Amino acid sequence: LCEVEHSTSGAAYFLGLDIGGTKTEALVVDQQLAACGWAKERTNTAAPDALVVNIVTTASKAIAAAGVSPDDIAAVGVGIPGQVLPASGVVRLAVNLGLKEYPLQDALEAAFHVPTILENDIRLAAFGAFERLHRETSKTKRADSLAYIGIGTGIAAGVVLNGKLYRGARGMAGEIGHMVVEADGALCNCGQRGCLETIVSGPGILRQAARLLPGANVRHAGDVYRLAEEGQSEAKEIVSHISRHLAQAILWLLLTYDVTHVVIGGGLTRAKTAFLEPILGELHRQRMQSPLIAELLGSTQISQLPPEDNAGLWGAIRLAQQQAEQGQGVEGRLGD
Amino acid sequence: LCEVEHSTSGAAYFLGLDIGGTKTEALVVDQQLAACGWAKERTNTAAPDALVVNIVTTASKAIAAAGVSPDDIAAVGVGIPGQVLPASGVVRLAVNLGLKEYPLQDALEAAFHVPTILENDIRLAAFGAFERLHRETSKTKRADSLAYIGIGTGIAAGVVLNGKLYRGARGMAGEIGHMVVEADGALCNCGQRGCLETIVSGPGILRQAARLLPGANVRHAGDVYRLAEEGQSEAKEIVSHISRHLAQAILWLLLTYDVTHVVIGGGLTRAKTAFLEPILGELHRQRMQSPLIAELLGSTQISQLPPEDNAGLWGAIRLAQQQAEQGQGVEGRLGD
Repeated sequence: LCEVEHSTSGAAYFLGLDIGGTKTEALVVDQQLAACGWAKERTNTAAPDALVVNIVTTASKAIAAAGVSPDDIAAVGVGIPGQVLPASGVVRLAVNLGLKEYPLQDALEAAFHVPTILENDIRLAAFGAFERLHRETSKTKRADSLAYIGIGTGIAAGVVLNGKLYRGARGMAGEIGHMVVEADGALCNCGQRGCLETIVSGPGILRQAARLLPGANVRHAGDVYRLAEEGQSEAKEIVSHISRHLAQAILWLLLTYDVTHVVIGGGLTRAKTAFLEPILGELHRQRMQSPLIAELLGSTQISQLPPEDNAGLWGAIRLAQQQAEQGQGVEGRLGD
Repeated sequence: LCEVEHSTSGAAYFLGLDIGGTKTEALVVDQQLAACGWAKERTNTAAPDALVVNIVTTASKAIAAAGVSPDDIAAVGVGIPGQVLPASGVVRLAVNLGLKEYPLQDALEAAFHVPTILENDIRLAAFGAFERLHRETSKTKRADSLAYIGIGTGIAAGVVLNGKLYRGARGMAGEIGHMVVEADGALCNCGQRGCLETIVSGPGILRQAARLLPGANVRHAGDVYRLAEEGQSEAKEIVSHISRHLAQAILWLLLTYDVTHVVIGGGLTRAKTAFLEPILGELHRQRMQSPLIAELLGSTQISQLPPEDNAGLWGAIRLAQQQAEQGQGVEGRLGD
């Protein structure tokens, strides 16, 4: 698929990096976005310097696997689980990477010697999911807006509006995990009580399981879905609680952003239809009650990301490609 | 202020219209946006045809007051209390105008013989408030995002993102009035129970007053604020309830759109500090609980529109101006 050739017009490949709390993935693609080389390493979060070396090593392995030279890379896109300041590329509050505030974009650009752009991982997954949608839909019915809900240690949304990634003034658009949805609910890491994240997130689900299913062997949030499928009533209650709140979150996103596509991703989607169907059921119930909601939902596509789809990595690739185009004056900064 | 002269380069004036359920205002401005002529008439909602005649008559009076000819108008912008379909300019669900579904943009363009563009009134007020902010702030600290919360018969938000009015895929962005905030709350016009609109809106406040203040002489929502200022405990309870929900709505808007400015407008703001202070107090309380909320609020300006500022009418004027520029190929369609 990948055409490895040295372009006469300079660097011809893009590098995407998806940096997670436990693993880092790197992918090299050619101009036609065909995959050329891939690498995966454990993330070293011991110290910022060690993290930079770790990222560069993973990138080098992907470049070597692609059979190209580092000079062939035109631009690098990087997804990070944390806040990325729009102007500077400084990473903030990336708890899982041990970065409180660090100029990671500058550090990586100095190592790669090519334009390097950082973005929050949920936002990149939104961009990747949007690109996938574009490839799959016909030119006449092109989507131009999408909200991606990523569920993991927390829950947040990434949004594509009018075909562009939307970041917000402080790079905090879509932080729906910290909407308070339960008065006097569980204490959230953010300091508030009853945030959406305390209910719909890996740790949030485990906490509910510890309370309602103390005897059951629940090690992952997915176990709750399995038990619910087996008919365990407390597990069904937890799934129903999660689904009601997710349905509500989807309606919020529709009532604020008025997007036509909602995609949900993250580990929970491995439960497949057991995950999505109760959400759709809850939305159907709301739809029956209100013509307004029925109209909004009637022209909205709600789906879950296939678990094998690394939308974040593809989002990073597309970000790199846009960055390279920007360097050539083709278009403005992403999200501007 | 207004320079009335017949431009050598063709039509040189813009017309803005703000059509409300009870009154219609029209304003003619010159290229420098100085007011030249103004008119105000009762809105005739007897039938769509009568409404069109009524709008055109009001416009003609403003044009005559400006001492210019209809041929001098370059473009017309119109604010409507209802949904405006982005592509066609068809007005939907404009209950207060008696329009269920009507091609008002086409009808008005046929009457005015110049480019005419319709937009939802809350959204235009957002645009007007944003323009005001731009005029007031220095060039170095220019705002580029704003959420306007308009409270009247209902409650909705209009948003300016990256300096542009954002409409959403179906022209329904910012319909926050229909977020369910109270389980088993009052029945909303939309069919759901406990929508934000059932608590924070003119009719919503009167309903709460009828329940908690049955003996009091409450004819307008503002009376509840007056009674609260006088120390009436049930009135204070209602104001506190409204303020808590408005503070929550502001946080939602910040967590989704990540805007730097929030402006609240509508009749309630006539209560001045009695309106805004309890909201700011509630936000302060949330801020003390959460570093994340403190960070968001720390760089956000929250204000209320001066009651005398017709932001919607100015938004219509700016829309007309943009429409005229678009006709000359200066920039793309608003919100694209």
